[in-house]
Amino acid sequence: MLETTIAAIRPPDESAMAAARELQGRLTKPAGSLGALEELSVRLAGLAGHCPPPLPEPAAVAIFAGDHGVHAQGVTPWPQEVTAQMIGNFLAGGAVVNAFARQAGASVTVVDVGVATPLPFAAPGDQAAHPPAGDVPRLVAANVRPGTRDLAVTAALTRDEARAAVETGIRVAGELIDAGAGILLTGDMGIGNTTPAAALIAAFAGIDPAGTTGRGTGVDDPTYARKVAVVRAALTRHAPDPADPLGVLAAVGGLEHAALAGLILGAAARRTPVLLDGVIAVSAALAAAALAPHAVGAMVAGHRSAEPGATVALRRLGLEPLIDLGLRLGEGTGALLALPVVTGAVRVLHEVATFDSAGVAEK
Amino acid sequence: MLETTIAAIRPPDESAMAAARELQGRLTKPAGSLGALEELSVRLAGLAGHCPPPLPEPAAVAIFAGDHGVHAQGVTPWPQEVTAQMIGNFLAGGAVVNAFARQAGASVTVVDVGVATPLPFAAPGDQAAHPPAGDVPRLVAANVRPGTRDLAVTAALTRDEARAAVETGIRVAGELIDAGAGILLTGDMGIGNTTPAAALIAAFAGIDPAGTTGRGTGVDDPTYARKVAVVRAALTRHAPDPADPLGVLAAVGGLEHAALAGLILGAAARRTPVLLDGVIAVSAALAAAALAPHAVGAMVAGHRSAEPGATVALRRLGLEPLIDLGLRLGEGTGALLALPVVTGAVRVLHEVATFDSAGVAEK
Repeated sequence: MLETTIAAIRPPDESAMAAARELQGRLTKPAGSLGALEELSVRLAGLAGHCPPPLPEPAAVAIFAGDHGVHAQGVTPWPQEVTAQMIGNFLAGGAVVNAFARQAGASVTVVDVGVATPLPFAAPGDQAAHPPAGDVPRLVAANVRPGTRDLAVTAALTRDEARAAVETGIRVAGELIDAGAGILLTGDMGIGNTTPAAALIAAFAGIDPAGTTGRGTGVDDPTYARKVAVVRAALTRHAPDPADPLGVLAAVGGLEHAALAGLILGAAARRTPVLLDGVIAVSAALAAAALAPHAVGAMVAGHRSAEPGATVALRRLGLEPLIDLGLRLGEGTGALLALPVVTGAVRVLHEVATFDSAGVAEK
Repeated sequence: MLETTIAAIRPPDESAMAAARELQGRLTKPAGSLGALEELSVRLAGLAGHCPPPLPEPAAVAIFAGDHGVHAQGVTPWPQEVTAQMIGNFLAGGAVVNAFARQAGASVTVVDVGVATPLPFAAPGDQAAHPPAGDVPRLVAANVRPGTRDLAVTAALTRDEARAAVETGIRVAGELIDAGAGILLTGDMGIGNTTPAAALIAAFAGIDPAGTTGRGTGVDDPTYARKVAVVRAALTRHAPDPADPLGVLAAVGGLEHAALAGLILGAAARRTPVLLDGVIAVSAALAAAALAPHAVGAMVAGHRSAEPGATVALRRLGLEPLIDLGLRLGEGTGALLALPVVTGAVRVLHEVATFDSAGVAEK
């Protein structure tokens, strides 16, 4: 499934992009006055292979949840059980991602791709084939293993486990798009998951982890120093090869990171935009881009996470984020805040009058 | 009316702000992880005098339109008639502001506060007392005079004209809030109106116009040099006193700038947030803040316009913009893009579960 998905990812359609540029120049506004929204509309036309591209509606957030063996190294002050507890909060509609999704009219799908502790309720089984049901968040049970191994000690995943998680992401993307989604938003939940994200970004960018490691959801100075040391030691131990993206994901990644890489590839193969959330998403995006360089054409950077690794990854992907408000929550919250900007950028091509049609003089 | 409005503007309610800070700390997310949205929710609680503050719904965009005598100096390549033609476009629903307003569910009210050329249709008269009617933009006929005088030659407005425009803005704010609006968004239309905006910002900030003057909606190098020279000469000629804000507006302002200052004051007096668009809005906001310093508590900066004066004004107001995407269109487009961020910031206080209520462990 991974190989056929990668083979289906095509470069952007230059003629649709040219048509979008030409249309932007005829609309009743000074040329260029919509700033980054104009180029975004051109990119989405190139992805769709059509001008105007379809409005990115409805939106579907996929939150991949997993736990991390590296939690044992004391890289976060939060107990591991919070991953499962927050899944309960997502399904009850009580988290920030739920509030933002309700506001944006987006569905929420939670995918247990590797939670380590029991979920605090009876899992309703795999519902992914069902269409998104308005406000009610759904759970997809797709646990590859109960958390990764401790990357400070051994490889986090086997190669087969990493592939299984990537293919889960591809499958979820396909099911959401089949159910009608016009845009996918990345979400994540996993106590400790900024540590593998920092390792992935350092591995793919080829830089020292001091430049990619942040304070996650609130670590103090000694914990931060330990976190950097853990990532640096893991990269030295495993020496992951960026030319082997599945190997990098297996050595120092997480199950939700691998699944998000799959979601991105699955969206790109279906020429559907995928709106990236924060540092977990962009670390996964680096893996997706290493597997299929043209997948970048499907990516829209939702926001600039406060985590330093996010900026490193965005620069490497050549993406400018739409929102930059110091968020570092994850869950998909930054992507949801950016969604109206993406929709607005496309809506302009659909709804705005031209100088000709409106009888407005040009300069 | 101006004096009673200014007298009604109160400082923020510290106890509501403290309650919002305390609530943010109990919600199911790491403390501080919503970045700038947390402080925004605290400010809006302070403005409302209540925690949580009301959701800022429905939203109403008020587009103040005017023309400028300084157009005669060749400060813009666009013909003056475009102001009236774009009003036709707004009322027909064909402009970018209309597309963004439909998406955001915001009403659009166009106020002719000083258009110089005939409107391209029969003006339906003053409809401001009517409640916003969904998708259909409304026109308010409140023309103070057909464009300002040329500020390169004489004062743009008399003191009475400036006051009349400010009071028009106050009146429109009151009518929109009476009709149910929970937040006002500033919009503007006026060929040449970045020139008075640059003059207002230079006057209130006390800096040279080279730092506040930009290329507006597309001026070339010679036009830009002329524009800076015109603003500098006007400030030298009129020597406006920033301690006399009405005098500054009269000397080098515009009718839409003055009306927007009034809209801001009217919103602040009613403890209703006002979401600022670009450089025209923030130049008006400096006048409003000079008239009533506590009016800043009602202001939310929607975006950072590409015009350099906008950044000067925002810094002086102590406001950080929510969106920074290189827009320089005006109309209210930048404010509309930021609206979901404002609503989301408040929604968190209404809808997100606490650690206690959700059974989620803390660190």
